[in-house]
Amino acid sequence: MRATCILLCFFMLLLVSSAHPGKKKQYKPCRELVLYFHDIIYNGRNAANATSAIVAAPEGANLTILASQFHFGNIAVFDDPITLDNNLHSPPVGRAQGMYIYDTKNTFTSWLGFSFALNSTDHHGTINFIGADPIMVKTRDISVVGGTGDFFMQRGIATIATDAFEGEVYFRLRVDIKFYECW
Amino acid sequence: MRATCILLCFFMLLLVSSAHPGKKKQYKPCRELVLYFHDIIYNGRNAANATSAIVAAPEGANLTILASQFHFGNIAVFDDPITLDNNLHSPPVGRAQGMYIYDTKNTFTSWLGFSFALNSTDHHGTINFIGADPIMVKTRDISVVGGTGDFFMQRGIATIATDAFEGEVYFRLRVDIKFYECW
Amino acid sequence: MRATCILLCFFMLLLVSSAHPGKKKQYKPCRELVLYFHDIIYNGRNAANATSAIVAAPEGANLTILASQFHFGNIAVFDDPITLDNNLHSPPVGRAQGMYIYDTKNTFTSWLGFSFALNSTDHHGTINFIGADPIMVKTRDISVVGGTGDFFMQRGIATIATDAFEGEVYFRLRVDIKFYECW
Repeated sequence: MRATCILLCFFMLLLVSSAHPGKKKQYKPCRELVLYFHDIIYNGRNAANATSAIVAAPEGANLTILASQFHFGNIAVFDDPITLDNNLHSPPVGRAQGMYIYDTKNTFTSWLGFSFALNSTDHHGTINFIGADPIMVKTRDISVVGGTGDFFMQRGIATIATDAFEGEVYFRLRVDIKFYECW
Repeated sequence: MRATCILLCFFMLLLVSSAHPGKKKQYKPCRELVLYFHDIIYNGRNAANATSAIVAAPEGANLTILASQFHFGNIAVFDDPITLDNNLHSPPVGRAQGMYIYDTKNTFTSWLGFSFALNSTDHHGTINFIGADPIMVKTRDISVVGGTGDFFMQRGIATIATDAFEGEVYFRLRVDIKFYECW
Repeated sequence: MRATCILLCFFMLLLVSSAHPGKKKQYKPCRELVLYFHDIIYNGRNAANATSAIVAAPEGANLTILASQFHFGNIAVFDDPITLDNNLHSPPVGRAQGMYIYDTKNTFTSWLGFSFALNSTDHHGTINFIGADPIMVKTRDISVVGGTGDFFMQRGIATIATDAFEGEVYFRLRVDIKFYECW
């Protein structure tokens, strides 16, 4: 009898400790996804290829060249292709859409608000991100604040790395998305 | 004695399985709310009625007409009345406040960051949204990333439908908010 | 034997009831943090000291004076020092980075999207916020939608109060952050 009770209670303990998917202290992601996206900033001469445009700037700046003081105050709107590898010409699996804001006067940092709209055989749905991006740091963490479709209600952390850039026209970001709250 | 123990353990099981409100696999919302909001874009001639204004645009565009290339790069700031039904003249129950960004060159899509500030006999509090809005699709899902007041800490999914529009000046959105994480 | 079982079951009950940190009905924060940040808007003459700049405005407005109609349509980008007390000259513990949008024609309200990037002996990580800010109300609640580093995955409510302001150039906000979802 005592054995039965202890066994049952032990079983309960197991249940309780497994009751928080992704909420354990060891913080093991319940899902992971690595994707790349490619940003080509409009500079007045690349209308056909550009995937983003500067749409706001502080007094005295124009909209075809990033502002002089570390681009402070520039807002860029983007619609960038997402690929599974680091090749701009790989078949896109979705679009990264939203904005980035350059927000420091004495170094390069930005603030990001954007979504991944994925539409491939593997994934269909959106992932929503916001966060601070200290561009000069090798890897930066932002928040995954929600998702829809295949990513219904999920939350997590996205680790961003600048995978490549060419002058101030092209850059490629590697995004390692770790979901810790899965549904 | 055994019966007592089993009963107690069964009771525990029930407790455990009910421990995740809204986090069950069937994804039944713990709360639902259908609201409408009405957006009248400032076009240089409707200052009195307008509830939103274009405040940013790419090089070469102006701020009283949406940009030519599917409005790509336009940012509009809005403060729109929220109603319980689809009538613009119904008594507002709050305001939808924030911004939308047109973010595609070859179709109409936008990125949304906004809040519902509700203030009626039924609801008092705010609901915060972000997400991608592929405007031409019949219904689009965005994330409810948090709330305050009556919507304290709640998360969910908002399904948006364009309920009506008149040219490029007026549009009305139907928002079906399903909360899956209730507190 | 019965006593043992009841004791064990009682222990289980405790475990179950403690299984949702911050998700109890009494809504006691699992963590709290009070911080101040300081915003100095660029007005064309204070380039050295300014920590924010107007970067977008509706038709007819300029970028060195907030727009006339309750600043409706202005977007300001900021990189503000965060301090532990209300003194602008205290050693900063991090930066508040992001944007605010003035979004009403007949009173002062704004929409906030920003992050705290904390970097001190006590805290290292980011906290991400969005929400509606009815500026003229004494205290306003916005959502903490996620965090990284020391604030990994945390969610909560931030209560904002305008602690001081000088004309339309300087203002100081007191932010009382209550986390209800801790990891």
